[in-house]
Amino acid sequence: MTTAPFLSATARVDAAALQTLPGSRKVYVEGSHADIRVPFREIVLSPTTTSGVTEENPPLLVYDTSGPYTDPEAEIDLRRGLPELRRGWIEGRGDTDFLDGPSSEYGRRRANDPLLAPLRFDLARTPRRAKTGKNVTQLHYARQGIVTPEMEFIAIRENQRRQALGSEEVERILGHQHPGQGFGTRLIDEITPEFVRREVAEGRAIIPCNINHPESEPMIIGRNFLVKINGNLGNSAVSSSIEEEVDKMTWGIRWGADTIMDLSTGQNIHETREWIVRNAPVPIGTVPIYQALEKVGGVAENLTWEIFRDTLIEQAEQGVDYFTIHAGVLLRYVPLTAKRVTGIVSRGGSIMAKWCLYHHRESFLYEHFEDICEICKQYDVAFSLGDGLRPGSVADANDEAQFAELETLGELTRIAWQHDVQAMIEGPGHVPMHLIKENMDKQLAECDEAPFYTLGPLTTDIAPGYDHITSGIGAAMIGWYGCAMLCYVTPKEHLGLPNKDDVKTGIITYKIAAHAADLAKGHPAAQRRDNALSKARFEFRWEDQFNLGLDPDTAREYHDETLPKDSAKVAHFCSMCGPKFCSMKISHEVRAAVFKDEADNPGLESDRETIERGMEEQAERFRAQGGHLYREV
Amino acid sequence: MTTAPFLSATARVDAAALQTLPGSRKVYVEGSHADIRVPFREIVLSPTTTSGVTEENPPLLVYDTSGPYTDPEAEIDLRRGLPELRRGWIEGRGDTDFLDGPSSEYGRRRANDPLLAPLRFDLARTPRRAKTGKNVTQLHYARQGIVTPEMEFIAIRENQRRQALGSEEVERILGHQHPGQGFGTRLIDEITPEFVRREVAEGRAIIPCNINHPESEPMIIGRNFLVKINGNLGNSAVSSSIEEEVDKMTWGIRWGADTIMDLSTGQNIHETREWIVRNAPVPIGTVPIYQALEKVGGVAENLTWEIFRDTLIEQAEQGVDYFTIHAGVLLRYVPLTAKRVTGIVSRGGSIMAKWCLYHHRESFLYEHFEDICEICKQYDVAFSLGDGLRPGSVADANDEAQFAELETLGELTRIAWQHDVQAMIEGPGHVPMHLIKENMDKQLAECDEAPFYTLGPLTTDIAPGYDHITSGIGAAMIGWYGCAMLCYVTPKEHLGLPNKDDVKTGIITYKIAAHAADLAKGHPAAQRRDNALSKARFEFRWEDQFNLGLDPDTAREYHDETLPKDSAKVAHFCSMCGPKFCSMKISHEVRAAVFKDEADNPGLESDRETIERGMEEQAERFRAQGGHLYREV
Repeated sequence: MTTAPFLSATARVDAAALQTLPGSRKVYVEGSHADIRVPFREIVLSPTTTSGVTEENPPLLVYDTSGPYTDPEAEIDLRRGLPELRRGWIEGRGDTDFLDGPSSEYGRRRANDPLLAPLRFDLARTPRRAKTGKNVTQLHYARQGIVTPEMEFIAIRENQRRQALGSEEVERILGHQHPGQGFGTRLIDEITPEFVRREVAEGRAIIPCNINHPESEPMIIGRNFLVKINGNLGNSAVSSSIEEEVDKMTWGIRWGADTIMDLSTGQNIHETREWIVRNAPVPIGTVPIYQALEKVGGVAENLTWEIFRDTLIEQAEQGVDYFTIHAGVLLRYVPLTAKRVTGIVSRGGSIMAKWCLYHHRESFLYEHFEDICEICKQYDVAFSLGDGLRPGSVADANDEAQFAELETLGELTRIAWQHDVQAMIEGPGHVPMHLIKENMDKQLAECDEAPFYTLGPLTTDIAPGYDHITSGIGAAMIGWYGCAMLCYVTPKEHLGLPNKDDVKTGIITYKIAAHAADLAKGHPAAQRRDNALSKARFEFRWEDQFNLGLDPDTAREYHDETLPKDSAKVAHFCSMCGPKFCSMKISHEVRAAVFKDEADNPGLESDRETIERGMEEQAERFRAQGGHLYREV
Repeated sequence: MTTAPFLSATARVDAAALQTLPGSRKVYVEGSHADIRVPFREIVLSPTTTSGVTEENPPLLVYDTSGPYTDPEAEIDLRRGLPELRRGWIEGRGDTDFLDGPSSEYGRRRANDPLLAPLRFDLARTPRRAKTGKNVTQLHYARQGIVTPEMEFIAIRENQRRQALGSEEVERILGHQHPGQGFGTRLIDEITPEFVRREVAEGRAIIPCNINHPESEPMIIGRNFLVKINGNLGNSAVSSSIEEEVDKMTWGIRWGADTIMDLSTGQNIHETREWIVRNAPVPIGTVPIYQALEKVGGVAENLTWEIFRDTLIEQAEQGVDYFTIHAGVLLRYVPLTAKRVTGIVSRGGSIMAKWCLYHHRESFLYEHFEDICEICKQYDVAFSLGDGLRPGSVADANDEAQFAELETLGELTRIAWQHDVQAMIEGPGHVPMHLIKENMDKQLAECDEAPFYTLGPLTTDIAPGYDHITSGIGAAMIGWYGCAMLCYVTPKEHLGLPNKDDVKTGIITYKIAAHAADLAKGHPAAQRRDNALSKARFEFRWEDQFNLGLDPDTAREYHDETLPKDSAKVAHFCSMCGPKFCSMKISHEVRAAVFKDEADNPGLESDRETIERGMEEQAERFRAQGGHLYREV
């Protein structure tokens, strides 16, 4: 096992995570108060030149998960953590107090252990908790009719300032957008803070934002918003160090992770998480049972409610934004998995199944679910109700065990809502394409439209090493059908712990799936980026094509493999077809021929007959000019 | 430009293409005659050991496109080409003659040019052609009620000997298969030679098998069979050599390419193709207009029917199995593309559009379509009716230009069928998910169920460098909806010419898409491989898990990155979760607890009540044994 020392004194941010993305600049859009500053990335484009006439291409504003890391004006120091963006908003509500120190026994023990000093994040402040009797969840505020700064921030963020450009102007420059097919999704043209509030109030969306994670930039998970993606990281007993995990976090958000789950099961779970939360501008999720199991030496049946409860408080006071809780694994469901091809494949699910079986009773997660709600509402930790019985193979998809648990997750959702605790529902797993929609439909029905959050699903089992792709297919489809957040799968799935490269591959694959889903749902303005990139491609603006892509670095590298020179970045061909066979180049000649005198012939495109009548004349002109209207730049 | 000399005297096969795949052996299933020997790959599996009882896992037979290259008994010599597997069948029909030599002017010129000797394949035989008045297409035979050896070969190949294992035995060992959803697909339990004949006769499937490509192993493309994939290769003026292209072919078929298209547009197109065809056990497709354009120095408007006709004959006599012909690009459709975001993105389409515009008349492809049929039926070259106006961006998907051309492709299909010439139809392109099904439905309706063959489609434009994934999503979906063959897209799409690595990535991605589609359609026995792999995974048979995957080498490499030792190949965990958190390991303990005495309790799994009654007793036993039923191997 490799554990590089991660010293509090010397921790340094991964330099690769600090570069601004090529052709991009960080911009902020202000809300109703100066402290609501919503970050975006603006991709600056070069102009289009046709026949000597130059037209500007407006910069494209894109949703930006990378936080201050890509802001050249920000001073990044992992040892100090990110600025407390939300501190004023939390304090302004007047419903929380600072504690004297961690109130969990384990948290206190770790804080006071001198041996841990070299790897401990030096947090100057103490944890915050709701005042007695107060509920500090966004769901609680929403139901009181309160529009929080978090909600306003999210409205601006989701809108991507798309009203700033009039739709006619956009259509002229960037082309139209296809109407979507949303399966009941309600996508509206302008997302208002009030719309955000209502979606949260009705349980259709959640805002994971623990009061002890004031560093996070508010985001929302719900099917009437942009589809989100999660990236998992975390060490195991076999591999990785704190430093590697922090690097995976900063690398993951650079490429688009909307949330990060820290699934560490190895050494120093508490300290690893502290470093991650303090430096994460996105919500952090965990599966607390992993750490609880560590505390009992890995013996599942020795787990107790008391140990688990202490773990929840420990993590809530560090700032974890959502907890995966496998409370739907009921004793009577366990035997339903015994004849499966792959049994129980959820780590949390298998731990709880073993516990239930050993003690022959329902789990403490289920029996103490309302106690867990009580903890969550004091910190605003959202539930991610875990699917402990999800299928681990195509054969086990949509079986009785899976759907029985889903029904229980629906019951638990309603209990969480009684406590004004936010909840989303986890979903599979391995599901062949034709059985995916049933998952989405059943989840919406059983869980009263609470957001769905699925792992893939993988659409076949036969490609270990490529499960980002087998699952990317399923993720795109279920995102289209209404899944609110897609949990990535990396190429290492089933084979080993992902490294930094795997994290990036997983993130990009899932950004593709999420965006493909937004397009298919018809999310307003989602197609703007596709149109801008395709226009750049057609106009041989190579740099713009790279920069508008999800991964400019790889696109450029692939292009330069055969044509590395700068001159190739304005060439009207690439190595795929070479200059004579470039369809786009020829297509420009065709277009020029058709439209040479469009100004003189305004009805040109109005119908085929008009076009045909105009064709002979144009053909003559084309021939007269030697068939070479096209000019090299 | 890099052109390594490829000398007739020294050509050598890529050693990487010759290894048998790990854990696999080449097997042949004989048909009704000894010369019908259908190749398969058999993946040999290790036994399952539970509580000291060992049960064999039957080897898995998989469809094998790799030809003799993976047969250790075959002698591979690129300079001699592959054995003429089909020679006897072709001669047995008595409807063809050998010519004195190439009958195309260009073919003769190349054959007689002494300067080309060093890079010319030394073909000892002359081309074959139908006797005067004969039609030698598989469609012609099928309509006469003749079941050819090619059809019998295909029936055996598609069946994968799935009747050999009784379904009860298969279910017991490998688990069930979900019923599929086929959108009108007719998948039958046992594919007979007569079924193959009928599908071909009715135009729903094609068997691309030029009489001058007797080296090819017959395969079928149709939606009532396994979904197939095509891999493109070919040089460009900017890059690559003959040797590299032959290596891409042998590499592509190793990983599962069902057909290969040689899209060369650079130097020595004729000689490159000869090397590829002579050494290809899969059908080869081309786009003859590319070479014709080379012959007129790249000036589209100088193309003539005579030059094109000579090119068709030249290529047909080399053994090309299918021709992409962009005869659907009509003059009146061209202006419909002028307002598109990305105009015309098909190379062939843009060439023909330019020609039509320049001459202001319909193309020679359209006007001479029946003459082309006359050529095709003398050699049995199938049509791949090209979609010259396919959308090159999400914005242009499903537009008037695209669908107008598709209607014309329907007309051309019926003309081809009047000549008993086989035809499939090419499709897009760039299409967002919710607009994909319309493509499939319209193609089936317009083209009377002729097979559809699509490029992707790409479901978003925003990920250059990852278009194998953006398109793999669309390919899986359209395969499910009924597309018969999926043309791969590599990571280099839009950026450069793919190299050997890119070819492999494209092929594996498309094997995933095709298999996911087979699963969703409910192709009989498609799920067997998923079940076998998942069973191996659950039983920690790591080697079997790797070997059952589409790419054993990469799976093993990823696993070994963190746990390289041999002992890790039987370990009951991997580096992802480590030993204590392996859900599958814990799941075995759960299963053991539930099923300890299944023999004494046969009703155990019959219903939940029975299970629950049995639980308390089992829990006691479990506790008595210390909760550690599980034993390390």
